[in-house]
Amino acid sequence: MTPTPAAEIAPYAANIDAIRAARRRIDPFIHRTPLLTSATLDAMSGRRLWFKCELLQRTGSFKFRGATNAVRMLDDAQAARGVVTHSSGNHAQALALAANMRGIPAHVVMPTNSAEIKKAAVRGYGGRIVECEATLEARESTAARVLAETGGTMVPPYNHPNVIAGQGTIALELLDECPQLDAIVVPVGGGGLISGIALAAKALKPSIRIIGAEPELAGDAALSKRTGMIEPPMKPVTIADGLRTALGPLTFPVVRDLVDEIVLVSEADIAAHMRLVWERMKLTIEPSAAVGVAVACSDWMRKQKDRADVGVVLCGGNVDLANLPFA
Amino acid sequence: MTPTPAAEIAPYAANIDAIRAARRRIDPFIHRTPLLTSATLDAMSGRRLWFKCELLQRTGSFKFRGATNAVRMLDDAQAARGVVTHSSGNHAQALALAANMRGIPAHVVMPTNSAEIKKAAVRGYGGRIVECEATLEARESTAARVLAETGGTMVPPYNHPNVIAGQGTIALELLDECPQLDAIVVPVGGGGLISGIALAAKALKPSIRIIGAEPELAGDAALSKRTGMIEPPMKPVTIADGLRTALGPLTFPVVRDLVDEIVLVSEADIAAHMRLVWERMKLTIEPSAAVGVAVACSDWMRKQKDRADVGVVLCGGNVDLANLPFA
Repeated sequence: MTPTPAAEIAPYAANIDAIRAARRRIDPFIHRTPLLTSATLDAMSGRRLWFKCELLQRTGSFKFRGATNAVRMLDDAQAARGVVTHSSGNHAQALALAANMRGIPAHVVMPTNSAEIKKAAVRGYGGRIVECEATLEARESTAARVLAETGGTMVPPYNHPNVIAGQGTIALELLDECPQLDAIVVPVGGGGLISGIALAAKALKPSIRIIGAEPELAGDAALSKRTGMIEPPMKPVTIADGLRTALGPLTFPVVRDLVDEIVLVSEADIAAHMRLVWERMKLTIEPSAAVGVAVACSDWMRKQKDRADVGVVLCGGNVDLANLPFA
Repeated sequence: MTPTPAAEIAPYAANIDAIRAARRRIDPFIHRTPLLTSATLDAMSGRRLWFKCELLQRTGSFKFRGATNAVRMLDDAQAARGVVTHSSGNHAQALALAANMRGIPAHVVMPTNSAEIKKAAVRGYGGRIVECEATLEARESTAARVLAETGGTMVPPYNHPNVIAGQGTIALELLDECPQLDAIVVPVGGGGLISGIALAAKALKPSIRIIGAEPELAGDAALSKRTGMIEPPMKPVTIADGLRTALGPLTFPVVRDLVDEIVLVSEADIAAHMRLVWERMKLTIEPSAAVGVAVACSDWMRKQKDRADVGVVLCGGNVDLANLPFA
């Protein structure tokens, strides 16, 4: 089946024009991350792999792109009232720094039981932490109160057009540097990253395959594609903590229509490929990024005949060194 | 004092022409390593730091440059008889792969008590290991026997003109990308890396400062500069295992004449800056590379007024994950 170009389908949360505009907007603030190769991993996958090193992005993950795009799109009056989120992972750090670089406040609602290392990271980037109880209800009601008190703008971690457009800039850089790519492997959590990349890449090169990578223990996006509806997060939780969330109303249609396949990998494969990249590529990828590497080196990939050049997005590198899944 | 340009001093082991020729020779085989920045580390050092990521070089260290240059300079008849070394560290891996990529044998003399991980690495790159007793005498006599049996060529880890010229190519790339550099910080072991870099950088930009970085526990090069003679290795040994060797007859004159200062750092600082780079830059640098980072962020560096842009060579990333000096 020939993949359908994004432009011919009903509009999604972002299009190639929005993603190109995002690139111009965020370019002065982000790192242009390197594209690295590894002969060892090429041999393991049976093709040429191109690793887009978003773990070397500011704040240690791709999230800084979407957060910066969202923050820079606020008008001055909106911006002055600050931004708010109740994510406590990489998005919280990214939003804190993006706001800091614009000189505006970022209010991050975090449960009192969050890891101290995560709180320290948000504070280190200039964010203001608002603590709440460790339930989704408490997070949402606390965020609503902060929004009401400050008049600030909510910037969610993935289900937002400006966030999705920001993440899509990765595909523009990838295809600029490596136009021969036949496929891109992208880890799937809430779907913001893969939605932005799919929308940009399929617009520029309709023949390109977009391959989602999910842990078996968090295969909700793969299931969502099969059932045609957004499936909830799964239990028990995967070590790939960035991929535990479900798809959102804006990302699900893109994953449903533009993502060609979603491949699942085991927890053991995640840990093994994380270690492999640490040892051979010298990059401290986090488990979520290892999910993509595991798919790129999987039996499934070795069976694909028509993919000589494959991009792999190393989405983040925020790891607690005191708590590694190996050694 | 105005530093004396290399060209005006009696010839050393390599000159800018040899280093430029080395670059043309090795370019098809090496990785062009990225130059990365970190706002966090800039703030700690009080200037702009440019990290040359040789840990992302093939085989995980800069040694692949010198080894490739030496291997590629052999004529076909010499090459066919193979290369020999009795280094067991990063140079052994580098020489094994450089030889493998030319399709010739590499005989690596290693003590029987070498770490299995090091033997596996050499074998993995196609090297042939020749075991011997764990004394310098046994290594040298075994290497002499292998040389006699094979008619091969000895490629030492640093005290060789072609190896020094290969390492110097790092400075050409650094100054191409970042001509405004005021100084380059380089870890010092046997001195091959800093000799090549000093010879290239001072020829291209006589005003540039070359700063050596040594562990306090392996301050033999700093001492050699003061005493005017090659000082032997020190005990107890530093965790920076790549920097335990003494200078050689070819590297000492360059270090004596062209290296502006050598700054010493403590073992605690090495471990702390290694961890810092793992956590903030997401790069698994080895302790030897952390020595340079510790100098770049040192009190000594903060007192230097005239250095706005400083290059730091992250020389390698070969680390045993089961044996980290932190966590």
